[in-house]
Amino acid sequence: MKRAFVRARRPEHKQQRREAILVAARDLAMASGVRNVSLGAVAEAVGLAKSNIMRYFGTREEIYLILAAEEWRQWAEAVTTRLEASDDVAAALAETLADRPLLCDLLSQTATTLEHNVSIEAARTFKRAILAVIADVGAQVARLTGLRVDEGVELVSAATALAGILYPIANPSPMLAELYAQDPDIAATCPDFLPTLIRALKALLAGLPTLRED
Amino acid sequence: MKRAFVRARRPEHKQQRREAILVAARDLAMASGVRNVSLGAVAEAVGLAKSNIMRYFGTREEIYLILAAEEWRQWAEAVTTRLEASDDVAAALAETLADRPLLCDLLSQTATTLEHNVSIEAARTFKRAILAVIADVGAQVARLTGLRVDEGVELVSAATALAGILYPIANPSPMLAELYAQDPDIAATCPDFLPTLIRALKALLAGLPTLRED
Repeated sequence: MKRAFVRARRPEHKQQRREAILVAARDLAMASGVRNVSLGAVAEAVGLAKSNIMRYFGTREEIYLILAAEEWRQWAEAVTTRLEASDDVAAALAETLADRPLLCDLLSQTATTLEHNVSIEAARTFKRAILAVIADVGAQVARLTGLRVDEGVELVSAATALAGILYPIANPSPMLAELYAQDPDIAATCPDFLPTLIRALKALLAGLPTLRED
Repeated sequence: MKRAFVRARRPEHKQQRREAILVAARDLAMASGVRNVSLGAVAEAVGLAKSNIMRYFGTREEIYLILAAEEWRQWAEAVTTRLEASDDVAAALAETLADRPLLCDLLSQTATTLEHNVSIEAARTFKRAILAVIADVGAQVARLTGLRVDEGVELVSAATALAGILYPIANPSPMLAELYAQDPDIAATCPDFLPTLIRALKALLAGLPTLRED
């Protein structure tokens, strides 16, 4: 159902429209996966022409990089809250990621898709946002675990990278789901998101300090 | 430049044509990256119509899944040879992956792209091929390191998953390369493929046995 928007002339209207586009892109991605959402579908959902969307965002990838930066920041807040109550760092990182399917979907697409086809300014803003999150959460991890700060940063980077790998594996296409139903021995090798992520992070937590050269 | 093929009627001609398609798809991917190769480009390179290509392979993703299975098998051979001469398992896994940019590119695309848009038979053949490789190399790793066989399989799975993450990061788009040139502090956070992979595998090698519950 299209809503007919008139051209936004005032700054607050532009801001509203920008927000509406981001909300629509988020909703569509939650419903059908980031990779399946076209700019045309976003335009249709907000009742704007594609050319009109591009006054606000250069490409669909720019929209999703902005949503990704927002998801990273919300994740950092959730981890921070969680680590105030518990010092199980592996579980805190893994469970807060598992709670955020849109973030994990975006993580699975960032390097191979989203960081292509965007302006250098959009890429810079995104990189600075996530580097700030990784530095912040990495420092918290270091404080709680006895890892060095650089090792904390490595652990946080590994957590988000592995979440991006595990997400599409744990959320197979309908065709793969059918294959798993037909061949249970193949399905059995398909890793579960949360236990696999926790185990990898625990192994890294134990293993990283053994690599120090003093 | 198109070569005009006549319709292949004999089995050996069909086999030749199939091989020609695979070779063209491989060459194009090596030159411009898997994500940038369309079925149309493959068709043009072998001088066939797209509809004719589809007598041999259902989709571009099927072509690349077949090439991926072949790359996995060649990698297994290389690791096996390497491990006969050296027991540095982390370096052996990482360096043989670093030697294979096409495999790493395919690994970065498998779960998010290649395993979509293929037939269930193509997916099954691919999964069985790579599970056999992981089991084989995992057993070799276990024998050399004192890891249990299931831990060896985990290490090999981690090696290939991390190679798929690190490849697009270490091979940035022209836009990202320009960003890194402008902002050296952002570039400095971009992990190098080989040392990052070796370090992660060494940490897992040390850490996985600490998680055993006896």
